[in-house]
Amino acid sequence: MQQAEIETGIRLSFEKLVALLARIFIRNGVSPENAGVLAENCASCERDGSFSHGIFRIPGYVSSLKSGWVDGAAVPAVEDAGGAFIRVDARNGFAQPALMAARDLLIGRTKEHGIALLALRRSHHFSALWPDVEPFADEGLVALSFVNSMACVVPHGGHKAIFGTNPIAFAAPRRDEPPFVFDQASSALANGDVQIAAREGRLLEPGMGVDRNGEPTRDPKAILDGGALLPFGGHKGGSIALMVEILGAALTGGYFSGEFDWSEFKGAQTPKTGQLFIVIDPERGGNDVFRDRVSEISALVREAGQERLPGDRRMQSRTRSMAGGIVLSQANYDMLRSYV
Amino acid sequence: MQQAEIETGIRLSFEKLVALLARIFIRNGVSPENAGVLAENCASCERDGSFSHGIFRIPGYVSSLKSGWVDGAAVPAVEDAGGAFIRVDARNGFAQPALMAARDLLIGRTKEHGIALLALRRSHHFSALWPDVEPFADEGLVALSFVNSMACVVPHGGHKAIFGTNPIAFAAPRRDEPPFVFDQASSALANGDVQIAAREGRLLEPGMGVDRNGEPTRDPKAILDGGALLPFGGHKGGSIALMVEILGAALTGGYFSGEFDWSEFKGAQTPKTGQLFIVIDPERGGNDVFRDRVSEISALVREAGQERLPGDRRMQSRTRSMAGGIVLSQANYDMLRSYV
Repeated sequence: MQQAEIETGIRLSFEKLVALLARIFIRNGVSPENAGVLAENCASCERDGSFSHGIFRIPGYVSSLKSGWVDGAAVPAVEDAGGAFIRVDARNGFAQPALMAARDLLIGRTKEHGIALLALRRSHHFSALWPDVEPFADEGLVALSFVNSMACVVPHGGHKAIFGTNPIAFAAPRRDEPPFVFDQASSALANGDVQIAAREGRLLEPGMGVDRNGEPTRDPKAILDGGALLPFGGHKGGSIALMVEILGAALTGGYFSGEFDWSEFKGAQTPKTGQLFIVIDPERGGNDVFRDRVSEISALVREAGQERLPGDRRMQSRTRSMAGGIVLSQANYDMLRSYV
Repeated sequence: MQQAEIETGIRLSFEKLVALLARIFIRNGVSPENAGVLAENCASCERDGSFSHGIFRIPGYVSSLKSGWVDGAAVPAVEDAGGAFIRVDARNGFAQPALMAARDLLIGRTKEHGIALLALRRSHHFSALWPDVEPFADEGLVALSFVNSMACVVPHGGHKAIFGTNPIAFAAPRRDEPPFVFDQASSALANGDVQIAAREGRLLEPGMGVDRNGEPTRDPKAILDGGALLPFGGHKGGSIALMVEILGAALTGGYFSGEFDWSEFKGAQTPKTGQLFIVIDPERGGNDVFRDRVSEISALVREAGQERLPGDRRMQSRTRSMAGGIVLSQANYDMLRSYV
């Protein structure tokens, strides 16, 4: 099928896809500045093969914008809490423009103090998390981010969904190779992957979720229709999901994943929660071999038999996309055109 | 069996157990100051029912000290890297005295800047991780810690052990109740639990480890005898294990879990690696409802059907131990006496 798509699909350069997506965002009430940030984010996901967070998300973005639930033109308010602590009130806008508004200050404070924190609240995060952390590693910094989302995961042994998929992302620079970056949901599966499986009519592996009665199911539609996902790795993944609620929401002043009320906004799809960043200067105090050490442990993992490290596949997709363009199926291209 | 132990065992107050353990440490080459820290740490584990890291570890501590591999009298060197970044060279001593040497400075810097980091290297960690983070939450702070250990975990899909059990611990204060604290290995099981199962001749659940040929096994002895543990939760737990190597070792300047060479120290058991702390003042910037919010999400998790939160069982054990004393079997009591 991928081969068929390549033959029959449309090829766009990264820049052209960004421009097309920016037009879609602007047409749907996003300010030009915010549209640029969201378009680059979404095009990066498509470019790198993060299809569940690429153009697949555009209908959801548009629907949410049209509902009035999210303010695409929001101007985030950066609140300098002094020292190494920065807060941002996203003012009901998207998280990525809120991050961009504070990014230079965050990097400056990290270099000044060795570590710094950014706490976003009243922010909508509807994309992958790795695009938020990777640029810090490109600057030689280590970054961690935590974002909660919308209630779709039951606690370990529980029956009611209260956690979001609650991903954690981590990035660290390496020597003469792209940074080590992972982005993983604390649910057994990402919501986007459940949606894609439902669309394709595939059954899921066992252990991914429960139906509306709390019974285990492999049917993605049963999970989406009143059911819920399970945390990955049993009670340990559940504890990580809870930590993400604490760091992403309690610490930032955002909503918990089960707390916001969008019932009056028909078509709303973007979870309005919070997001935390911790950024570290790993060379502070004279540790100038840090990049080499991260490359070293990455090599050891490969030698020990793990064929693919997190991020490897994204980097392969990126190289392919930058060389030959980003391939969209005719149907996807038409879908995008319909929103302009 | 627990009932039998209660009837036939020895009851010691927490203070008496600390004093007995301190005598053991001092008798085996630990300085009085360091002995006090290690004794309180070990007695706390026993008090709270963390049996795999309580007095069960004493023979290992003594064996490691006698081998000359670890310096019980080490005086840690605190290196103020400026701003919010503190390094400590544990000088081949234990991690807990190194933490204590920098703890006040770390708390001070956290309150000054809103977030601070402590990087320990050349440190031996042979205990549970929760006692390191819980006291920060008692001060109203949020703490994260990462420590790598000794190679006993294969990467996801790999055949060679290069990760330690690599636990993560997290602590956050709550309102009018003990802090939320978890401490979990990124392996499917903690090493101490494998040792206890081997001693008791129990089989493990499937999916915990592999034998010396890389084949799945439920026999704890096969895991300990040239085999290895698996990460929890498949590739996601494996990524966390790798992150702990990066944060606990690459960032601190310590050894990776598969890197240190103790072959010339017969009886050495304490892994010599590194440990990272990130401590946050959650109320910085006016978020004075943080404790309430952590209590709130804890309550939501219970209401959603998760019967026990991380730390609940420890708190129950602690209450029991403080009221009625810490119960040691006659055999364990004799074991301790033999080391004085």
